[in-house]
Amino acid sequence: MKQTIPQRIQALRTFMQAHHISAFIIPSTDPHSGEYVPAHWESRKWISGFTGSAGTLVITQTDAGLWTDSRYFLQAEKQLDGSGVKLFKDRLPETPSIPQWLGNVLPAKSRIGLQGEVNSVDFVKGLQLELNKYNIQVVSTEDPFTDIWTDRPALPHSPLLLLPLQYSGVSYQEKLAQIHAFLTQHQAEGILISELDEIAWMLNLRGTDVKCNPVFISYLLITDRQTTLYILPEKLTPNIKEYLSACHIKVKSYYNIEDEIKHLAPHTLIIPPSTNYTLYTAASSRHEIRCINSPIGLLKAVKNQVEIQGFHHAMQRDGVAMVRFLKWLKENVASNTLTEYNIDQKLTEFRAAQKDFQGVSFETIAGYQSNGAIVHYTATTENAATLHAEGLLLLDSGAQYLDGTTDITRTIVLGPLTEEQKKDYTLVLKGFIALSQAVFPQGTCGTQLDILARQFMWKNSINYGHGTGHGVGHFLCVHEGPHQIRMNHIPTALLPGMTITNEPGIYKEKQYGIRIENTMLVTEYQHSEFGKFYQFEPLTLCPIDTDAIQYSLLTETEVEWLNQYHDHVYNSLAHLLEKEEQLWLENATQPIHISH
Amino acid sequence: MKQTIPQRIQALRTFMQAHHISAFIIPSTDPHSGEYVPAHWESRKWISGFTGSAGTLVITQTDAGLWTDSRYFLQAEKQLDGSGVKLFKDRLPETPSIPQWLGNVLPAKSRIGLQGEVNSVDFVKGLQLELNKYNIQVVSTEDPFTDIWTDRPALPHSPLLLLPLQYSGVSYQEKLAQIHAFLTQHQAEGILISELDEIAWMLNLRGTDVKCNPVFISYLLITDRQTTLYILPEKLTPNIKEYLSACHIKVKSYYNIEDEIKHLAPHTLIIPPSTNYTLYTAASSRHEIRCINSPIGLLKAVKNQVEIQGFHHAMQRDGVAMVRFLKWLKENVASNTLTEYNIDQKLTEFRAAQKDFQGVSFETIAGYQSNGAIVHYTATTENAATLHAEGLLLLDSGAQYLDGTTDITRTIVLGPLTEEQKKDYTLVLKGFIALSQAVFPQGTCGTQLDILARQFMWKNSINYGHGTGHGVGHFLCVHEGPHQIRMNHIPTALLPGMTITNEPGIYKEKQYGIRIENTMLVTEYQHSEFGKFYQFEPLTLCPIDTDAIQYSLLTETEVEWLNQYHDHVYNSLAHLLEKEEQLWLENATQPIHISH
Repeated sequence: MKQTIPQRIQALRTFMQAHHISAFIIPSTDPHSGEYVPAHWESRKWISGFTGSAGTLVITQTDAGLWTDSRYFLQAEKQLDGSGVKLFKDRLPETPSIPQWLGNVLPAKSRIGLQGEVNSVDFVKGLQLELNKYNIQVVSTEDPFTDIWTDRPALPHSPLLLLPLQYSGVSYQEKLAQIHAFLTQHQAEGILISELDEIAWMLNLRGTDVKCNPVFISYLLITDRQTTLYILPEKLTPNIKEYLSACHIKVKSYYNIEDEIKHLAPHTLIIPPSTNYTLYTAASSRHEIRCINSPIGLLKAVKNQVEIQGFHHAMQRDGVAMVRFLKWLKENVASNTLTEYNIDQKLTEFRAAQKDFQGVSFETIAGYQSNGAIVHYTATTENAATLHAEGLLLLDSGAQYLDGTTDITRTIVLGPLTEEQKKDYTLVLKGFIALSQAVFPQGTCGTQLDILARQFMWKNSINYGHGTGHGVGHFLCVHEGPHQIRMNHIPTALLPGMTITNEPGIYKEKQYGIRIENTMLVTEYQHSEFGKFYQFEPLTLCPIDTDAIQYSLLTETEVEWLNQYHDHVYNSLAHLLEKEEQLWLENATQPIHISH
Repeated sequence: MKQTIPQRIQALRTFMQAHHISAFIIPSTDPHSGEYVPAHWESRKWISGFTGSAGTLVITQTDAGLWTDSRYFLQAEKQLDGSGVKLFKDRLPETPSIPQWLGNVLPAKSRIGLQGEVNSVDFVKGLQLELNKYNIQVVSTEDPFTDIWTDRPALPHSPLLLLPLQYSGVSYQEKLAQIHAFLTQHQAEGILISELDEIAWMLNLRGTDVKCNPVFISYLLITDRQTTLYILPEKLTPNIKEYLSACHIKVKSYYNIEDEIKHLAPHTLIIPPSTNYTLYTAASSRHEIRCINSPIGLLKAVKNQVEIQGFHHAMQRDGVAMVRFLKWLKENVASNTLTEYNIDQKLTEFRAAQKDFQGVSFETIAGYQSNGAIVHYTATTENAATLHAEGLLLLDSGAQYLDGTTDITRTIVLGPLTEEQKKDYTLVLKGFIALSQAVFPQGTCGTQLDILARQFMWKNSINYGHGTGHGVGHFLCVHEGPHQIRMNHIPTALLPGMTITNEPGIYKEKQYGIRIENTMLVTEYQHSEFGKFYQFEPLTLCPIDTDAIQYSLLTETEVEWLNQYHDHVYNSLAHLLEKEEQLWLENATQPIHISH
């Protein structure tokens, strides 16, 4: 029999009592600090009924609260109704933080619990620091859901996929040499890798354990003498076993990691701050620990020549799918039968027909008119709006291919627009072009470039609340660090070979949303007496809707960039299209002309 | 009899032996972390003969080395010749840092000395951390120069000046209330202020102890019950004594600060990280110390309405002097008798004739042609180049007035230019205009805006190695924090009321230097549904030479800004000028026209 939410919470309270714990914290993460979490670790969702991607649950013997951000206020209110769980609206000035609230409702010397395995060292240490003010102690417990979550999904045991050199470009052995050099440089003998995309990149393997991200659940321990992969053995097909053996990589059970890390011969070990608290504690008992970032983040961010070629090919196929879709959409919107939901099915159909397609790279955001103003909107069969031949559709989507990952946003004109829509669309486009055209010296980080995308809307007192750009993995996570382009400070300098999105937007509540996004590549520009200079090249190949442009706001340089980009799109895609699609694209990429 | 450099160094070595010290470090700073240092504390200059503004001397029993940066390589080589002091070229990859060098030449367990009074807590702690690697201990000593520097200049005892409310705008009592609120907020009972411009601002007093900076040597201890000024008593005229007494400010001798801070009733004390190490140590013996920044930096940076009005008036008078000078310069350059040195005398003469003039705000940089490419060039009677009716003169200068401080750079056309000079001048001007026109949301820091000034030269693979903007004091230091506009990260957000310079440049070695600089004010722009937006208004009033502009590179928006600025300059200054000067200014501020 399925337990009710109050029954589930009661079961946890019994566990808490047995462990002398006054409160329990349940986050939305997993043991690998992933953005997407396998069902096995969706315990916060299971125990509270709240299905949003971000939210932290806190349970005491008499109270329960969920902290989530403004994206999920409405949804959380609905889903928590009748559960006894209170909603705490995160980041509002009147909302107490979790430590503040715990400090108020619990007596001093209380013990609060969390499952160390699904919380990072960084998070637990920060929490303990805050709770010190109230003399409250954080205790790491075993997994309470092992017993109380009766129909808990198992860990996925789907097989791994080998990504051959023709896609990955650099062998495991070459990557290993870089990690060994890093260990020497930091006078350490080993490093524990637990972020799944880092393991996938390192081993040139992929998986299907996590939605949208082609990774597999595992840990990787690299020492100067041995590499060991901790994984469920049933995930290894004979050819993967053979490959791992050829690479001299030992395989051990995923469940052995904690024990192994405790009992390995002591030496100096690098434990990145994103590692989960349980493993950090296990390692600390026997090793000298260095809590520094894994080098793989930066190595993975700088794409090699084969990966770059792969991106170009993947973008071509993705562009073909996008052009087919746009043509179909524009020709069928007047039927009044298309919805935000079913157009996404159609788009995925076009993409799935392309070679090496491996699924979508994130959940599509298709927001028509006022829905476009909800930055993380997801249409479902129930709530999807029907499209009509007017206004704007914001469409942010992407796919995984064996040779690259795509992420593209276009704001599509479905019919007549207001002057305000056109002006805002043009302000977004101007920022998008300014960033596309940027040239910058070696050492520049994204924070310095961010204003290029925002400067024109700022002069109209408009801004957007999200970042301007993020890295994109190579057949890996669509959001990839460590570099970003955003208003707050991100110290990582941009390097040739990095991918980065360019996605300014304007969101007017209850009216419309506009965003234009290309994925770009950092490349060399010139080397002068003043040093090295870099630039961006667009990777994404898809027309930008010119029907929404207020021509009088564009400069000649901007028009020139747009016409050149459209020329490039046409030349890259036309030969892959049917005759009628070619004609449609030719029309969509017609050069525009202004006369001031 | 005057001692030779080797005799001076030998005297210090004797002091070192008596104190069991293997090496002594002598910095260029003073007990107040000042940019300009009174002669009394110029011990590094006295003992080494090197007169540059930046350089650290390290002396062992057998060796002596001076670390200085590229600005001073040539000068240091000349001045150190025959002294036995080696030059270490700072910031070159092959040059060891001071701790590295000490670690190499000294055995482990050595003690190295420095005078705690002229080194900040921050510096000493950082140095000790580095030297820990070599097991070398840093020891703070008494002032070795008290005995060995026989003709050492005394501390200046010039009288203080009261800056009345008509200039300062906010009374000491109101400022004190803000400091008391800060103490309450940080649960501290007192704060020690040792930066001289902070003390001057706090008390609405000024002095003449330091070149270019109208400050006076003192410490200020503010507790929740009492404010005490530590100062040489002879500096206090009867009216200043009366003012201090009316403000209930106790006065004690400057020399008493160390003893007093030791013996004050213990309480929680804020000691900013720029405080000198001797006072920090004295305070630590009896107080609970909070090492956090003084709040005065930010309070002082945001100018009040009276200070802003004062700036406007000072800028008008400074503009009149600049216009007179520019007219005189252009009319007399063909005589071939003007030099980089004597034109500065003429400029200062024009400024000195203006009401409330109090001296220059920094040493003028007048660099003709290739000398303009030397960023911190200072012309002397000996080396000054003679000006001719060709090429470019870079002129960076400023003054102190009772109602404000000025800082302006113009690059002046003396005759025919090359196409490259014109192009570079126009690239600098375009960046200068883009930053002048910036609009940005609340919370924006200078790092985010910096690219506006550099973007056009970057597209030509050109860059400059200095910051784009710094705060300017109100009849105080011309370089004022905590906000800045520069490539590296400065977290302080810009706020309405802050002054900030805008000074991009291009420097081509052995050819020419170009810089254009206005001082600007941050003001409110608009408040929309997206929050508060700010902008800049130019404070500086002086024409920008249009003879160097390559018109084809300017956009209509840029031309519009320039014409409006020139219109504003003319309207602000014309009525203060003689007829002939008016005509000259009218011509210099003629609107320009482009036709693309």
